[in-house]
Amino acid sequence: MSTVERQLEDLKSKIIGEVPDDISISDVKYEGPELVVYTRDPKKFAQNGDLVRKLASKLRKRITVRPDPDTLSHPESAREEIMEVIPEEAGVTDLDFHADTGEVIIEAQKPGMVIGRHGSTLREITQRVGWTPEVVRTPPIESSTVSNVRNFLKQEREERREILERVGRQIHRKEMADEQWVRITTLGCCREVGRAAFILSTAETRILIDCGDKPGAEGEVPYLQVPEALGAGANNLDAVVLTHAHLDHSALIPLLFKYGYDGPIYTTEPTRDLMGLLTLDYLDVAAKEGRTPPYESSMVREAIKHTVTLEYGDVTDIAPDVKLTLHNAGHILGSSIAHFHIGDGLYNVAFSGDIHYDDTRLFNGAVNEFPRVETLVMESTYGGRNDYQTDQEDSERHLQEVINRTHEEGGKVLIPAFAVGRSQEIMLVLEEAMRKGEIPEMPVHLDGMIWEATAIHTTYPEYLRDDLRDRIFHEDENPFLAEEFNHIDGGEDERQEIVDDGPAIILSTSGMVTGGPIMSWLRHLGSDPDSRMVFVGYQAQGTLGRRIQNGWDEIPINDRNGSGRSNTLTLKMDVETVDGFSGHADRQGLENFVRTMNPRPEKVLCVHGDESSTQDLSSALYHEFNMRTFAPKNLETFRFK
Amino acid sequence: MSTVERQLEDLKSKIIGEVPDDISISDVKYEGPELVVYTRDPKKFAQNGDLVRKLASKLRKRITVRPDPDTLSHPESAREEIMEVIPEEAGVTDLDFHADTGEVIIEAQKPGMVIGRHGSTLREITQRVGWTPEVVRTPPIESSTVSNVRNFLKQEREERREILERVGRQIHRKEMADEQWVRITTLGCCREVGRAAFILSTAETRILIDCGDKPGAEGEVPYLQVPEALGAGANNLDAVVLTHAHLDHSALIPLLFKYGYDGPIYTTEPTRDLMGLLTLDYLDVAAKEGRTPPYESSMVREAIKHTVTLEYGDVTDIAPDVKLTLHNAGHILGSSIAHFHIGDGLYNVAFSGDIHYDDTRLFNGAVNEFPRVETLVMESTYGGRNDYQTDQEDSERHLQEVINRTHEEGGKVLIPAFAVGRSQEIMLVLEEAMRKGEIPEMPVHLDGMIWEATAIHTTYPEYLRDDLRDRIFHEDENPFLAEEFNHIDGGEDERQEIVDDGPAIILSTSGMVTGGPIMSWLRHLGSDPDSRMVFVGYQAQGTLGRRIQNGWDEIPINDRNGSGRSNTLTLKMDVETVDGFSGHADRQGLENFVRTMNPRPEKVLCVHGDESSTQDLSSALYHEFNMRTFAPKNLETFRFK
Repeated sequence: MSTVERQLEDLKSKIIGEVPDDISISDVKYEGPELVVYTRDPKKFAQNGDLVRKLASKLRKRITVRPDPDTLSHPESAREEIMEVIPEEAGVTDLDFHADTGEVIIEAQKPGMVIGRHGSTLREITQRVGWTPEVVRTPPIESSTVSNVRNFLKQEREERREILERVGRQIHRKEMADEQWVRITTLGCCREVGRAAFILSTAETRILIDCGDKPGAEGEVPYLQVPEALGAGANNLDAVVLTHAHLDHSALIPLLFKYGYDGPIYTTEPTRDLMGLLTLDYLDVAAKEGRTPPYESSMVREAIKHTVTLEYGDVTDIAPDVKLTLHNAGHILGSSIAHFHIGDGLYNVAFSGDIHYDDTRLFNGAVNEFPRVETLVMESTYGGRNDYQTDQEDSERHLQEVINRTHEEGGKVLIPAFAVGRSQEIMLVLEEAMRKGEIPEMPVHLDGMIWEATAIHTTYPEYLRDDLRDRIFHEDENPFLAEEFNHIDGGEDERQEIVDDGPAIILSTSGMVTGGPIMSWLRHLGSDPDSRMVFVGYQAQGTLGRRIQNGWDEIPINDRNGSGRSNTLTLKMDVETVDGFSGHADRQGLENFVRTMNPRPEKVLCVHGDESSTQDLSSALYHEFNMRTFAPKNLETFRFK
Repeated sequence: MSTVERQLEDLKSKIIGEVPDDISISDVKYEGPELVVYTRDPKKFAQNGDLVRKLASKLRKRITVRPDPDTLSHPESAREEIMEVIPEEAGVTDLDFHADTGEVIIEAQKPGMVIGRHGSTLREITQRVGWTPEVVRTPPIESSTVSNVRNFLKQEREERREILERVGRQIHRKEMADEQWVRITTLGCCREVGRAAFILSTAETRILIDCGDKPGAEGEVPYLQVPEALGAGANNLDAVVLTHAHLDHSALIPLLFKYGYDGPIYTTEPTRDLMGLLTLDYLDVAAKEGRTPPYESSMVREAIKHTVTLEYGDVTDIAPDVKLTLHNAGHILGSSIAHFHIGDGLYNVAFSGDIHYDDTRLFNGAVNEFPRVETLVMESTYGGRNDYQTDQEDSERHLQEVINRTHEEGGKVLIPAFAVGRSQEIMLVLEEAMRKGEIPEMPVHLDGMIWEATAIHTTYPEYLRDDLRDRIFHEDENPFLAEEFNHIDGGEDERQEIVDDGPAIILSTSGMVTGGPIMSWLRHLGSDPDSRMVFVGYQAQGTLGRRIQNGWDEIPINDRNGSGRSNTLTLKMDVETVDGFSGHADRQGLENFVRTMNPRPEKVLCVHGDESSTQDLSSALYHEFNMRTFAPKNLETFRFK
């Protein structure tokens, strides 16, 4: 009997000792980080409202209860009973029964009403039919990404369960090392923005945090080939943790599967879906630009199949000596600070990912309270000594002013924006400004993946700022559904119509003008002196966006017929930058994050910023807070314990 | 055709272009770092005195010329001719013909006379018989280590040639990486003394420098299991470089072969032999103490078989992007500073190994002139702010005084000493003191491996201090052959006789009183209040030597009958420390080494010292010389380029 089997036997006896005698426990299994308890008496289990919570706290495990398949009522009759229990206003759109696990997936417009107060409706369902209900939201805006991911996972359920069982055994394996230490190796995004990737290693475990590309620097990928990363074989990695879906953090996650990685990816549910959307687009762009993509779309599916989603605040065993907790980072939908608790109180490290310290329209500000944390690995995008941003209120006024001015001059406003994050923030600003009459009503066209990304936002309102979530939840006044928003799905013809038509605002990807429909808009509007290009997000070094922002007006641009011939476009449209909409904390925000952090860390590694930004911030934090600070280079290893 | 084969074809054409038309070139091969040129006209080659040197400088390779086997004269007649050419005073003791390579190994008491002025005698031999002569010294004191190593290598010639050919192809492989970087990973001996081990890695190459154990800390071995070291497989290492033979640098070198390493070890010839001696003894001690040795003696033979010896100053390709040069470190016989030239002028790193900056009786002081060096990894054994040692002259007077005092009191002097290094230094001091009448004449008994180590010293006088070498070479006044020196080879009986006899000085291993015959001497003399134990070398933390030095007088000691029962010995003999004989530079010496270093490095990593010593030295060098200095921890990685 393996140690894991012994452990499970042991857990089974404990559970039998804890539950009332009339509840049978037929099997106990690991599935990923969860402990799955099979019972022949699911209904009795459900009657005992607190039982699962008590077991979980007693055993310090995440627990799922599943019925033995032969105890289940027939799906047909179960369906009827379930629909009786759930209030009609919940808007159930689909019920999907999985006899293999006794689960029924309920898709509903208002999941809260399916769950009920403290889960009472869910328990009632189990008491009535024995099945274990799981609830997902019906996207208020139809999202092909969300439905593709859900269908794919449904189709791959069996393989996924095998993966999760394997991962579960791996997580709960016996510790082997007789010494303890904690190290971080930097594989990218040090003294640069892009190709985020770190290895957190202990004597027992190796975890990769993020695996991104570098915008504007084709070929500069994380140093995955070194032995600390994949050089010793991809399966020497125990886990991958993804802080958020932006490509400079996620683009090369699917590549890991091409290299033979076969383990879990821990991230939030929206990040999983956004990663799917963005990486598939990444492959698409590469193909359109005649580059060989580094992996095929099947690898994106592998990544999704291996993803284990966590909610903010879930403390999860991901290795025998590592617990992971994700916390809201305030940067984009699902963005997380990844907190690692290592050993039994040995050490704690938090990776900030990208953070926004203050609340924005879309998100609550980043969490900076932790039970313990000795080392913080922090982004420094705006860490430079002069990287102070305008207040959002002033920025919004500035944006309104630019829009009004352009409108008066008879031009159009073209805003390059990341599909994910900045676009939705600007949408909220424009919706309110029009509603309040601060700017004239005019169509706001959304090009590229912005519409799809917005649909994903509305699928996961729990991840949005409290009051925005409430608006979407309770008041049916979803601002993303406002009528001025137009999804461009008619290609060049539709774009030409818009050009020929009256005043308009166009939000288009890519955010750093490195490709995508924004290139088409440059051809359409670039030579119109009345129109205006407005930058609202960070432009990395080496990107066309940064060059235009710096005053370049001779733009190399591919011919529209895709012949690959390169022409030069003389930019006549006005260029303006409205800052303050960044998804990143500015210098003040970064300092505030550390100042109010509780507890304050002993060490800070300043990463994810230009060389001077990381060094400025490192030096400032050292002088201000008397902590040990570093501005690491790529390919270094720091030991903490 | 592989790239290496193309390279060899190319070199062959170049050589043919360079040599006179009447010299045929039949083949060109790599053997380790050397280029072996086969010719049917070895005699004509030899006539052209400068030809090999010219080729070597033209091709920037180390070149060896070998005759085609069928051009060779018969060994019987060749032997006669060779003996005619070599002057009788050379004292030839053996001739060994190897038809497979056309080499004849000439063992002689005076190798210089076999070589002749600028190699003239060697060339004459080739001109007469066609064979390529190679000269080795007949040890003036018979050394079983030297003869065992030579016999073993003779017996393994064929396999060794295969290894060297493989290594040669590996060294001259095509470079693959498209980026360049240089890193050092610390696997041991950081903020501690012992278990020296570093990885120097580039995008192309990984090199292990040293692999030692930690005296007094059973089980604390270098972190070889991490992926940067052997975690990614032992054969991801390109090369191992050994700075010197002390066990805290060499003990686990043979273990690498147990783990599957199959590549070269670069070191000096005396270090190879001393490593053989010391590691076999290390296994012996482990067995005697009832521990399981980490490897078998066959692994020591593997290590010797894979050793490629270099002389000080030889610039040698050891990887496509790395050239290694060993320089005298002044610490023990054959001890080296390992200088790495990386890329084509990209970066230069020197690993000091253990160094002695000033001249000692045995050795010239450490070399600190290099063509270039940006980073120095430096030992800090005596780097603490108060680690100043007595001048050697004062130390010698102190030692004489202690000996005279003990002699007057009717006691014996017991000196625990490392077999290699300190023992021979003390022997030279005692020999001169007796010769000059500073101390009374009395027997000096050498116990443990000291005699054998001394024999190895006399085999390689080229590695000794100039004037000592000259005494051994030219004047036949080898101080190690003085009559007061007695090799204890009669075990306990002989020891008992010595105890019962008159005044005596005893030098015995181990140097830190961690085992070996010194334990027997403690039993014999420990309770004699007239006798005196005199420490002349560094005592590491955790060793019995350090405890005795600090005043412990209740010594746990195994019963002499080997029953393993542990008794307590009450130490009554006097204990005294005479410092100034260390093989290590003191704080002043370390600072002087850096101060006068040419060029001065940009960065210094202070390693191989207690925590406070490395930090003190790091801070002092920073303040004094305004360089970037570090006191790394184990398991960290520094990136330099």
